[in-house]
Amino acid sequence: MTEGQRADSAPPRGRRPSGRRPSGADTRAAIFEAARGEFAAKGFDATSMRGVAKIAGVDPALVHHYFAGKVELFTETIVAYVTPAVVVGAMVTGPREELGRRLVTGFFGFWDGPDARETFAALFRSAATNPALEAVIPAFLGREILPRLQAAYEIDHAEHRIGMVAAQLIGLALMRYVVRLPAVTAMSVAELASVVGPTMQRYLTGDLGPG
Amino acid sequence: MTEGQRADSAPPRGRRPSGRRPSGADTRAAIFEAARGEFAAKGFDATSMRGVAKIAGVDPALVHHYFAGKVELFTETIVAYVTPAVVVGAMVTGPREELGRRLVTGFFGFWDGPDARETFAALFRSAATNPALEAVIPAFLGREILPRLQAAYEIDHAEHRIGMVAAQLIGLALMRYVVRLPAVTAMSVAELASVVGPTMQRYLTGDLGPG
Repeated sequence: MTEGQRADSAPPRGRRPSGRRPSGADTRAAIFEAARGEFAAKGFDATSMRGVAKIAGVDPALVHHYFAGKVELFTETIVAYVTPAVVVGAMVTGPREELGRRLVTGFFGFWDGPDARETFAALFRSAATNPALEAVIPAFLGREILPRLQAAYEIDHAEHRIGMVAAQLIGLALMRYVVRLPAVTAMSVAELASVVGPTMQRYLTGDLGPG
Repeated sequence: MTEGQRADSAPPRGRRPSGRRPSGADTRAAIFEAARGEFAAKGFDATSMRGVAKIAGVDPALVHHYFAGKVELFTETIVAYVTPAVVVGAMVTGPREELGRRLVTGFFGFWDGPDARETFAALFRSAATNPALEAVIPAFLGREILPRLQAAYEIDHAEHRIGMVAAQLIGLALMRYVVRLPAVTAMSVAELASVVGPTMQRYLTGDLGPG
């Protein structure tokens, strides 16, 4: 597909699209895929909107049309990469009492992928050094996780509970994909689900009051 | 204290000290304090052995005498900063069944300090971007935590258990001091102990087999 074809399929600059068009979704998907590759390979600082546009085969103006800036592109790229597989697939389908185990299985089943684990390490390093990117995690949890979880299950203090879940999962992923601590890398996804599933279940549905 | 005085108190270069001398310990402490400040303020890349020596008021050759390189200095600095307060004080004193809660209270009681929380964020950012520094966490756990824990309590699969504990604590500290996720920053140390203490206790002494 040439640059011209992709550019044709996008809404004119300055005017918002009146509805979702498959061609616009394709363009966004191409931008996300290019952005994920660039952020993972080069880090946040060395990635440019122009470079992403070039790899996606779209006009740079189109990247700016969809995304206000590089921080927004970074955030949306992670959301687009993670959301369908981890959240929709694993979390909100199934009984409430197996939520914790399913979440661990879905999370590490996804990030253990050969492409994904390098992406995690690279995105993590980008985020760790750019304070502007710290908002990615709260935005992801608040926009993508919280509403889906609350739509599927009755969960009190959901924001607090999701914060605890995120801290545990991100800490483990950090040890598994970035630090590569042998005690954590040696575990299979099934072992992680056995060990960490009960923690997740308690954080999501258990009693967290003073005990 | 002048540079000359400090340099005098160190063993001659190329010869190992035959015993621990208080003056040598003072010199190391001064280097650690200077290094912590430099790494925290400037990050790993912009910190130099020479700059640390200058702030500590010692001859640069002395820093090289004690530390093979910047990675070793970084590692030892974190160990010297964290070990006495967190490990010796909080972890191995008290009943085995309160180990989890005590560990959470000691860890966050220490890192919540006004100076410490900025240090955590800065050291974390340094480590996240320098793959050579990833060895800091395994080295710290293996050298400082594992032997002390095993000397104080009977713990099976200690390396595995400590890995799980580290993943949880570091994930939480990341959310509390770096990402500053409201759900995690809003909690007091006592609340963290109530919520996370049981997780730590299970990871350290509970049944982690398939269940």
